[in-house]
Amino acid sequence: MTVSECTFTERDGAVCAAAGFRAAGIACGIKKSGAPDLALIVSELSASAGAVFTLNKAQAAPVLVSKERLAASGGRARVVAINSGCANACTGEDGVATANAMADAAAAAVSAGRAEVLIASTGVIGVALDRDKVTSGILEAAGALDAEGGAAAARAIMTTDPFPKEAAVTVDGPAGRFSVGGIAKGSGMIEPMMATMLAVVTTDAAVAPGLLQRALAAAVDVTFNAISVDGECSTNDCVFALANGASGAMLSEGDHDLLVEALRRVCEPLALGIVRGGEGATKLVTIDVTGGRTNAEARRAARAIANSPLVKTAIHGADPNWGRLVAVAGRAGVDFILEQARVSIGDTVLFEHGTPFDERAEEASGHLQQAEVAIGVNLGTGGPGAARMWTCDLSAEYVRINAEYRT
Amino acid sequence: MTVSECTFTERDGAVCAAAGFRAAGIACGIKKSGAPDLALIVSELSASAGAVFTLNKAQAAPVLVSKERLAASGGRARVVAINSGCANACTGEDGVATANAMADAAAAAVSAGRAEVLIASTGVIGVALDRDKVTSGILEAAGALDAEGGAAAARAIMTTDPFPKEAAVTVDGPAGRFSVGGIAKGSGMIEPMMATMLAVVTTDAAVAPGLLQRALAAAVDVTFNAISVDGECSTNDCVFALANGASGAMLSEGDHDLLVEALRRVCEPLALGIVRGGEGATKLVTIDVTGGRTNAEARRAARAIANSPLVKTAIHGADPNWGRLVAVAGRAGVDFILEQARVSIGDTVLFEHGTPFDERAEEASGHLQQAEVAIGVNLGTGGPGAARMWTCDLSAEYVRINAEYRT
Repeated sequence: MTVSECTFTERDGAVCAAAGFRAAGIACGIKKSGAPDLALIVSELSASAGAVFTLNKAQAAPVLVSKERLAASGGRARVVAINSGCANACTGEDGVATANAMADAAAAAVSAGRAEVLIASTGVIGVALDRDKVTSGILEAAGALDAEGGAAAARAIMTTDPFPKEAAVTVDGPAGRFSVGGIAKGSGMIEPMMATMLAVVTTDAAVAPGLLQRALAAAVDVTFNAISVDGECSTNDCVFALANGASGAMLSEGDHDLLVEALRRVCEPLALGIVRGGEGATKLVTIDVTGGRTNAEARRAARAIANSPLVKTAIHGADPNWGRLVAVAGRAGVDFILEQARVSIGDTVLFEHGTPFDERAEEASGHLQQAEVAIGVNLGTGGPGAARMWTCDLSAEYVRINAEYRT
Repeated sequence: MTVSECTFTERDGAVCAAAGFRAAGIACGIKKSGAPDLALIVSELSASAGAVFTLNKAQAAPVLVSKERLAASGGRARVVAINSGCANACTGEDGVATANAMADAAAAAVSAGRAEVLIASTGVIGVALDRDKVTSGILEAAGALDAEGGAAAARAIMTTDPFPKEAAVTVDGPAGRFSVGGIAKGSGMIEPMMATMLAVVTTDAAVAPGLLQRALAAAVDVTFNAISVDGECSTNDCVFALANGASGAMLSEGDHDLLVEALRRVCEPLALGIVRGGEGATKLVTIDVTGGRTNAEARRAARAIANSPLVKTAIHGADPNWGRLVAVAGRAGVDFILEQARVSIGDTVLFEHGTPFDERAEEASGHLQQAEVAIGVNLGTGGPGAARMWTCDLSAEYVRINAEYRT
C-alpha cells in the first residue's frame, strides 16, 4: 500500500484505538498527591516492538532494563508498564534491581514472557522508587485493564503536564484497515528534575520487528526529535511502539512509507502537545529552515534557533527581532551566506538579499501576538537542505517554575 | 623572562596604563540618550596589533573592514575607533562603505597610515550607522585624546552594560617593567540585539605581531572564550591588542608564556565583569569540569552546563539540583561514566560513585545563596581533561529585558 492509496481518519481511544490492546491508569501511592501514577498497556496477542531511547549517557535504570529485555525478546513485547512521580535515575544498583522487579511484576501480572516487557519511569531524579508500591500497583492495574483504558493510561503518566496527550488514526487502504494510537507525556516542571518525555504507540497492523523499529525511528525523527522546549535531553526519554496484527492488515517492507506516515500522524500531535504544554509556554512556534547545504545542516540551524533564549524571549514579547535570527543562523556552525539569506515571520519577509524591511515590523509583530507562530529562515547557500522544528516561547514563568526550591 | 621571575601589580588607567597610549570617549549623537558613544584609542608610536574576531558567519561591516586593514598592515595598528549605539551589522554594501569611511576618518585624524586602523561597532543590528555623526565624532575625539582617557573610553563603548569594565597590570621582571591595560563591554540587553562583546588591550612592551597574535589568542581562549551569559555569539564580537614598545621592555618568543599570563591577568577581570553585568544576572558561577577524556571534552561539558537553562534557573533559585548537572553532563556529547562521576556545589559533594547525598542539600543551598558560586563536575572517565567556564544565573529579569519590544 502506498500513502496516496490510503485515507487517514483521526479518532479517539489513544493506545486502545488499535484492536487487541487494553490499558489502565491507577494510583499506587508513588505521588504524594494521590494522583494516578501507574499505567499498564497490554496486547492480548504477542506483538512486535520497537523502541527509541534517550541518547543521554546518564541512562536511568528503566532505560537499561527495557533495552536488555527488548534485545532478549528479539523485538517482541506484550506489556508496557510506566510509573510517574519518580524517575528511578541515578539510583545505582538498587535502582536497577527495582526496575527489574517492576518488569517481572508486569510480566507475571499478564502472563507474558519475562522478556516481553518494556518499562519506563518519570519523575524526580536521584530518589529511590518504592519497590512494593510499584509492584503492587502493577497487580492492581492488571485487574483494571480495559479496552477503553487509553485515556486513563494517558493521565497516569503525567507529572505536571497541564493536560494529557493522546492521539489515534485509522488507516483505510486496498489491503485493509488498521489503526495506530498513542499517548505521551511532556515537561511541565513545577516539580523539578523531570524533563522526561515518554510516549507509547500501538497498532493493530501486523509488522515485523525490524520494519517496526525502522519506521518508528523515521517517524520519531520528524516528530519527537523535532521539538524542543528548553534544549535539555533527559535521562529517561523513550518512545515505545507495539504492533499486534489484530486488525488482520499485514504491512511488509513495501509498506514502509505508509507505516511511517501512519506513525507520524499519531506522533506529531503528541509531540506538539508536549511543546504546547512546555514549561511556561504561551506560544507554539514552527521553525522552517530552507536553503541549507544539506537537510542535516538545515536541522542544525533550526535546532539552534529553537533553543536560542534571545529568539524565544523576543517571540514571547511579540518582538519581530529578525537580527537575532540572522545572528543565530550565523553561529549555528553550518554554511550561511548573509547576502543571500532571507528571514520571515508569518508571511512577512523582514530581511532578504542584505536588505532589512523594517517598515513591515508591525505586521510581523501582529503575527507574533497569536498563539501559533511561524518563523522562516533561508540560509542562502542555494542548497536543497530543509528542516522543520517546533518550540515554545521562553517566559518568566519558565524561570519561576524551574527556580523554585525542590523541597 | 618566565612567569615565576616576575611580579604582577594591579593598577588603574585601563588602556592608558601602558605608556604611549592616549584615549578619549565622547558623545557624537549616535545614541539618542546623548550618552557617550564614541571611543578612540591611539598609540603615539607604531604598534604591533593582534585581533580575535567573532566566528559568526553573519559578520558585521566593521569586522570585515578591520580584518582587511589588519591583513594589509601586516599586523600593525596605531588607532582603534569604536562606536556604540549601532552595530552596523546586516547593513549591506552601504554598511561596508560607512565602516571604511569610519576607518579612514580615524587614520586621518591621528595621521596614521590607512591600514593602521581597527574599528568596531556595537548596538542594534540592521540599522544604518550615521556616517556624518561617526566621522565628525572621530575628529572631535581626536582633539580630546588624553593619557588619562582610559576610563572615558571604557564608558563610551557601553551599551546597556550596568558598569564599565576596565583592568590593568604592571609586570616587573629581570628584563624590565611593562604594563598591560584593557577595556571591555558586555551584554546588558535592555536595548535588544546587542549581545556584542568588545575588548581592547594595550601594552607598552615591544612584541612582534605574530607573537602578539598567538599570545592574544591563548589569553582569549581561557578568558573571553570561557564565559557565557546566554550562549549567543554576536555578529560583532572582537578583541584587539596593541603593543607599542614604549616601556623599553622587549618580549621575544621565549617570553610567550609571560605575555599570555600578563594578557590573561587583564582579560580575566574584564571577562568576569561581562558575566557579572550579564542580562538579569544576580550570581557569578564558576564551573570546573574534571575527569574528562581530554581538555576539549571537559570544555564541551562545561559549556553545556554554562548554557543549560535548567541549571541556570536552579542556581537562581538556590536549588542544589545535582540531578540536572548529571543530566546535562550526560547529554553533552562527551565521554561520561555515571558510576564514577562526581558532582559538587561549593565544597559539598552531592553525588559520587552512583550515590546521592541528599542530606547535604541544605549546606549546598546555603552556598548557592551567595553572589559567587562554584560548581564542580567530574565526568568519571579517569582522564586528565579539565576546563573552567564562567556563567551567570538565569532570572525572570533576563526574560523581561529581552521580551521587551524594540520600538
